[in-house]
Amino acid sequence: MAATPELSTLISDPAAFAGAAARMHAADVAAALADLHPPASGRILAALPFDVAVDILDDPELNDRASIIGSLDTGTAASLVDAMSADQQAALFRDLPEPDRARLLPALSRPAQDALTFLLRYRPDQAGGIMTTEFMGVPPTWTVEETLRLIQSVGGAKETVYEIYVVEPANSHLRHVVSLRELVISDRNKLVTEIGSPGKPVTVDPATDREVVARLISKYDLLALPVVDQAGRILGIVTVDDVIDVMVAEETEDVQKFGGLEALDKPYTEVGFGAMMRKRAGWLTALFIGEMFTATAMGRFEHEIERALVLALFIPLIISSGGNSGAQATSLIIRALALREVTLRDWWKVAARELPSGLALGVILGAVGAGRILLWQYLGWYDYGEHYRLIALTLGLALIGVVAFGSVTGAMLPFVLKRLGFDPASASAPFVATLVDVTGIVIYFTVAALVLRGTVL
Amino acid sequence: MAATPELSTLISDPAAFAGAAARMHAADVAAALADLHPPASGRILAALPFDVAVDILDDPELNDRASIIGSLDTGTAASLVDAMSADQQAALFRDLPEPDRARLLPALSRPAQDALTFLLRYRPDQAGGIMTTEFMGVPPTWTVEETLRLIQSVGGAKETVYEIYVVEPANSHLRHVVSLRELVISDRNKLVTEIGSPGKPVTVDPATDREVVARLISKYDLLALPVVDQAGRILGIVTVDDVIDVMVAEETEDVQKFGGLEALDKPYTEVGFGAMMRKRAGWLTALFIGEMFTATAMGRFEHEIERALVLALFIPLIISSGGNSGAQATSLIIRALALREVTLRDWWKVAARELPSGLALGVILGAVGAGRILLWQYLGWYDYGEHYRLIALTLGLALIGVVAFGSVTGAMLPFVLKRLGFDPASASAPFVATLVDVTGIVIYFTVAALVLRGTVL
Repeated sequence: MAATPELSTLISDPAAFAGAAARMHAADVAAALADLHPPASGRILAALPFDVAVDILDDPELNDRASIIGSLDTGTAASLVDAMSADQQAALFRDLPEPDRARLLPALSRPAQDALTFLLRYRPDQAGGIMTTEFMGVPPTWTVEETLRLIQSVGGAKETVYEIYVVEPANSHLRHVVSLRELVISDRNKLVTEIGSPGKPVTVDPATDREVVARLISKYDLLALPVVDQAGRILGIVTVDDVIDVMVAEETEDVQKFGGLEALDKPYTEVGFGAMMRKRAGWLTALFIGEMFTATAMGRFEHEIERALVLALFIPLIISSGGNSGAQATSLIIRALALREVTLRDWWKVAARELPSGLALGVILGAVGAGRILLWQYLGWYDYGEHYRLIALTLGLALIGVVAFGSVTGAMLPFVLKRLGFDPASASAPFVATLVDVTGIVIYFTVAALVLRGTVL
Repeated sequence: MAATPELSTLISDPAAFAGAAARMHAADVAAALADLHPPASGRILAALPFDVAVDILDDPELNDRASIIGSLDTGTAASLVDAMSADQQAALFRDLPEPDRARLLPALSRPAQDALTFLLRYRPDQAGGIMTTEFMGVPPTWTVEETLRLIQSVGGAKETVYEIYVVEPANSHLRHVVSLRELVISDRNKLVTEIGSPGKPVTVDPATDREVVARLISKYDLLALPVVDQAGRILGIVTVDDVIDVMVAEETEDVQKFGGLEALDKPYTEVGFGAMMRKRAGWLTALFIGEMFTATAMGRFEHEIERALVLALFIPLIISSGGNSGAQATSLIIRALALREVTLRDWWKVAARELPSGLALGVILGAVGAGRILLWQYLGWYDYGEHYRLIALTLGLALIGVVAFGSVTGAMLPFVLKRLGFDPASASAPFVATLVDVTGIVIYFTVAALVLRGTVL
């Protein structure tokens, strides 16, 4: 999102910018700051009213937050960070270079230091790494009235007040969850344990994968999901807005993996040349080495190519058809697995479905391919020799075999990866194409040997 | 998600199942019903307490909801549908076959009929198609106290009470938005217009793409986004839980498009053989026809292949390397465009970045490829002839050219599609590979002509 015009014209004047920014939504100011150097953004934040600056820093869409904080003096930085929400403090600290961390951490308030040290124990792809410790907890002995009064007095400072957690004071055990909606519509004299849905609250443990967290929030339409430890003690909550950010990040990761590279973890424009090389060269080289077997396979059929050079013309067409049908099947199964439409034990059902699909698709492509040879011959655009009908038959039959093999291989690859404990989303289009190319060559020349023996070969 | 064990054992006994289901979360019951035939699910829903059955029907994760409703008698179906939320009624009606629609619509209550007719005017990929008309609106003259009292009395029936919309009674204009949190923490005697953030509420019009709706909800951390018409009248709201469902659907669509097929719009397991063929055969055939130019290109270089058959061995390796580097670049740029990290006018910055990246990656692959030829020759595994060093040089230089060309083409394709008004996510890995394959062959043989002229060629 581009900066609004008024803001863009003000960025040369921090004080004027700050004045305009104070009246805007934090997310819009964060977007406007994206065009500035971090120290310039830092000066603007320092000139803003304190609460406005904190809101902007709390927005995960603020570009290069770590450098902005790093450009401020320790006192200013610490007071701003202290006021940020706990989960965003943790996200910021993960991005801060070690010297800035060492300088900032001791300057924070004691509770912020403790919360940070606790949250940084978890990885950012785990529930513990995206949760916040600022939830609203009340003891089971409280009434609706007491709870509403607490929200009224401290609710402005909490990450969310839309879910209230009923916690045993003695051992921090999570007993029950009530929503603010349920509180507001209930009799004020009831106990909090008497309202809301009965039954155990949906919870996760801190090591749960963030994708599972997103799925649970989506499935149960939650505004926040509590994170509890083995003993049932509540540690924090993951809120729906953080889950949306997670979903966007996961989709980016999946698309990049499917494109055949390591996930970048940063915006494209912020990744340096060296880092970009590392993310891309690894997979590209691995695929290249796998693809080298095509040269070996081609070498095996050198004799056939020499006798019927015309066969060589269709090799790119053959192998790309296998790769394309494989990429289709892989993308279908990656999503079907991610959405739990199919599970590991359904692999044979999928194979039993992809084989006829692949054969039918192969018949279509085979007919087009064979038709092209016949047409070119009749029109005199190319001379495939006296046995052109057999060449057309070879191409058609080979395409049926290659496309069917590509579809089944492409569909099975995500299952195999999942079974071996890898992310099925690592089954990239280039990965499938590489798997299918060598086999495509073997299928093609085998069909050619059968059809053309005694005539061309 | 599999059914919980207890439920699975009960599915043969609708009454027992209904008893167990009444104590469970609606989403879990919906998941358990996935294994049943629609009429069996219908019998169970009819046996459940009415409110429980409505909650289950309101869950978009309930498989094949339209067939379940279709299996019930009109009276039962109409009373259940009448109690569903307006946006889910619309989603259900979009899936219902025409005879069921015609039978059910007149049996619904008058307000439900009007709301449905209104909502069905919009496409499901537009804000109007995913909004609900059940929002909480109050006039600007109301106080916090009055608003809270209204929520207390009718809040249970509304889709969300966490955002309250201040609407002019005379003309339905949206004036202001306050959150339930702001209401609860504010002085009860203030006017609703005096609390909450000042400034214009974030809104969309009903034709806004659902992806834009998702981005705004994510950017501004909203729990609901109001939909207003040109005149500023509020028509409905899109809630955060519906946006999460939209994000999941959009990701599925994007992954399938990137795999080179039309988006399925239904779970993999629910798409019939014919529909699956149509979704896949179109793109596959189009790509195949594009790929046919490789046969034409190869025909042009038949003479070179005849004189140096060894060149043919590396054609699959050359073209797959171009396709793989292109797929990497395309996946990077599709996401960067989707996340607004780059915009259309940044195309030359991206090109200026991908060219050196592609050259560097090409040097890596070129070195590996040339090294492989030299190694095989030294080890005596294959004889590339007396000019094997020149063959290695040809392969190395051609790979640099092909990988650089693949990276730049792959990066530019999403820009070109976007500029032409198509979804940049249609730039699939197979699409890029097809574009790059013909050029790869031309680059390879051109390099070969330059390096090998006078020796091998």
